[in-house]
Amino acid sequence: MKKHNFSAGPSILPQEVLLKASEAVIDYNNSGLSLIEISHRSKDFVDIMENARTLVLELLGLEGKGYKALFLQGGASTQFLMVAMNLLEKRAGYLNTGAWSQKAINEAKILDDIYEVASSKDANFNYIPKGFDIPSDYDYFHLTSNNTIFGTQMKAFPKCDIPVVCDMSSDIFSRQLDFTQFDLIYAGAQKNMGPAGTTLVVIKEDILGKVSRNIPSIMDYKKHIGAGSMFNTPPVFPVYTSMLTLEWLKGLGGIAGIEKENEKKARLMYSEIDLNPLFKGFSAKEDRSNMNATFNLVNENLKETFDTMLKEAGISGVNGHRSVGGYRASMYNALPLDSVKALVEVMSELESKA
Amino acid sequence: MKKHNFSAGPSILPQEVLLKASEAVIDYNNSGLSLIEISHRSKDFVDIMENARTLVLELLGLEGKGYKALFLQGGASTQFLMVAMNLLEKRAGYLNTGAWSQKAINEAKILDDIYEVASSKDANFNYIPKGFDIPSDYDYFHLTSNNTIFGTQMKAFPKCDIPVVCDMSSDIFSRQLDFTQFDLIYAGAQKNMGPAGTTLVVIKEDILGKVSRNIPSIMDYKKHIGAGSMFNTPPVFPVYTSMLTLEWLKGLGGIAGIEKENEKKARLMYSEIDLNPLFKGFSAKEDRSNMNATFNLVNENLKETFDTMLKEAGISGVNGHRSVGGYRASMYNALPLDSVKALVEVMSELESKA
Repeated sequence: MKKHNFSAGPSILPQEVLLKASEAVIDYNNSGLSLIEISHRSKDFVDIMENARTLVLELLGLEGKGYKALFLQGGASTQFLMVAMNLLEKRAGYLNTGAWSQKAINEAKILDDIYEVASSKDANFNYIPKGFDIPSDYDYFHLTSNNTIFGTQMKAFPKCDIPVVCDMSSDIFSRQLDFTQFDLIYAGAQKNMGPAGTTLVVIKEDILGKVSRNIPSIMDYKKHIGAGSMFNTPPVFPVYTSMLTLEWLKGLGGIAGIEKENEKKARLMYSEIDLNPLFKGFSAKEDRSNMNATFNLVNENLKETFDTMLKEAGISGVNGHRSVGGYRASMYNALPLDSVKALVEVMSELESKA
Repeated sequence: MKKHNFSAGPSILPQEVLLKASEAVIDYNNSGLSLIEISHRSKDFVDIMENARTLVLELLGLEGKGYKALFLQGGASTQFLMVAMNLLEKRAGYLNTGAWSQKAINEAKILDDIYEVASSKDANFNYIPKGFDIPSDYDYFHLTSNNTIFGTQMKAFPKCDIPVVCDMSSDIFSRQLDFTQFDLIYAGAQKNMGPAGTTLVVIKEDILGKVSRNIPSIMDYKKHIGAGSMFNTPPVFPVYTSMLTLEWLKGLGGIAGIEKENEKKARLMYSEIDLNPLFKGFSAKEDRSNMNATFNLVNENLKETFDTMLKEAGISGVNGHRSVGGYRASMYNALPLDSVKALVEVMSELESKA
């Protein structure tokens, strides 16, 4: 039986993507060779890489606007360093909205001066700080659009005169935004885009080349752009599976199409959290994430019963992160509304039992 | 029809590995979930990672000798930088045996002083330099055991009082060596170990912690070791497929078993190159690689005929690298002897025709 997969990441992928990816591991396109044993310089793979890069810009509405898409390795954690290597000359501003923002700050600090423009650490990051100033003489401003662990999401982005860098790992391709307000977007694939093992970077080219540092080749966005995202052997399978997922998304009507589904899922989920007296939500209502709903049992004694019921209903991956506790339902693009319905049903069943 | 796959990398993998990897993409271990949509912190994946790390040390004969195995991202190209970040304090010695050695030198130079102990650039890297000195006050000595592009391979390694770092990307797990003579071995997976997207690093722990540099977290071997090779989300599919390949190798009798096969393949290949008057080998005989045989047609006019015959025989991936020209037959662990027989047959058929 296929489970209801609420994993926070790596996370659920569309079934048709899994089937095609699985086939390609045996034989790609009737070539007599597996996708994972052909040269990355072969026409077959070069086409995959180019298609994936084009789909990214197309889906984000960034074609012809001076942006390039790269599929790199090393996760968002590598981008924490690469962003600073390529853009940090004197000082940058960071918004601290949780564990991942904090890691981005710590890594950039090794190179130069970082200023925390605001933080929600005072309330265990259960809200998004607002009304802060971003000095206009900084090199860039860095933010995290969605905080997987805490279940918060930025609904509006501050106007800003300096380049804006956004870690969009856990909500990219999930909602319509004016993506031109960002100069650099990065995202680990393993939530809305594909399997673990590749990281998407979308860069407005004109922000590069402005630091005096001698950037190591493997860390240099310009070198990766110049090599068409093939500066070294790319992670073939993760890139191919990401391309399939982007094609699936395009077939659903792109971001506009999926956004409607994501809103339905989030509305259903949060209305149960709010109406069911056995549960309380963790994050501030106005900052609630449509991707990750975090909630706790009011009475922890019900935990064992609830966990058993979840298991019996085939619901998987809803354990909360240790720094928040309780539960977390991750509702990424590929999660069907029916899975949220199944979860909500178990929650309301618990209420009738209790 | 399954082709004879002589690709230089990404390259051929065992058929049973491809079948298992393909199945896991649909459903891992009857869990009702795909391998690529489960948490990397789940017991299922933690077991895979631990099994892969243990198999590496076991196959290399390094268990209980102070070594740790890591599965990282970013390819050997990232290791060029990471090695220097973690080990280079004042000066290191590098042996330059080709394009990849040169890249390793260039990247490390950004951080500090690099001394080229010897080079075979004078003859387009068709041999391995010998008889050079390695100063005993350097931080480490770096070498490349096999040069994929040029088809050369180090048959003996210089005795050395300082830590030895070896890029073993294209011949790891292919021949028996005393692996304790190396203090750090790194290798991109995509030749003898698995698909592109993960990089194996094997480190003798006691060489770490000796530089004064403040190492960025994602570049710090100690942090990766401390986190059990899960400092951040690992590349799940490439690690799993590598584990399957290591299990396959163990089943064949480990490195001792595969070495015999590799020697048979190389002997057959080079004897055809030497006996067939239509071909000449590129690399010096005593330095010939058992992994990559490089050779040229004596008369380039036969190229079209030969290429057509290769295609008709289902032989794929034998084009030489642009810096050497001609042909390159990569004979990695998973390539069957029958594929070499098929290639040799076409070469000798060409001779009878010509």
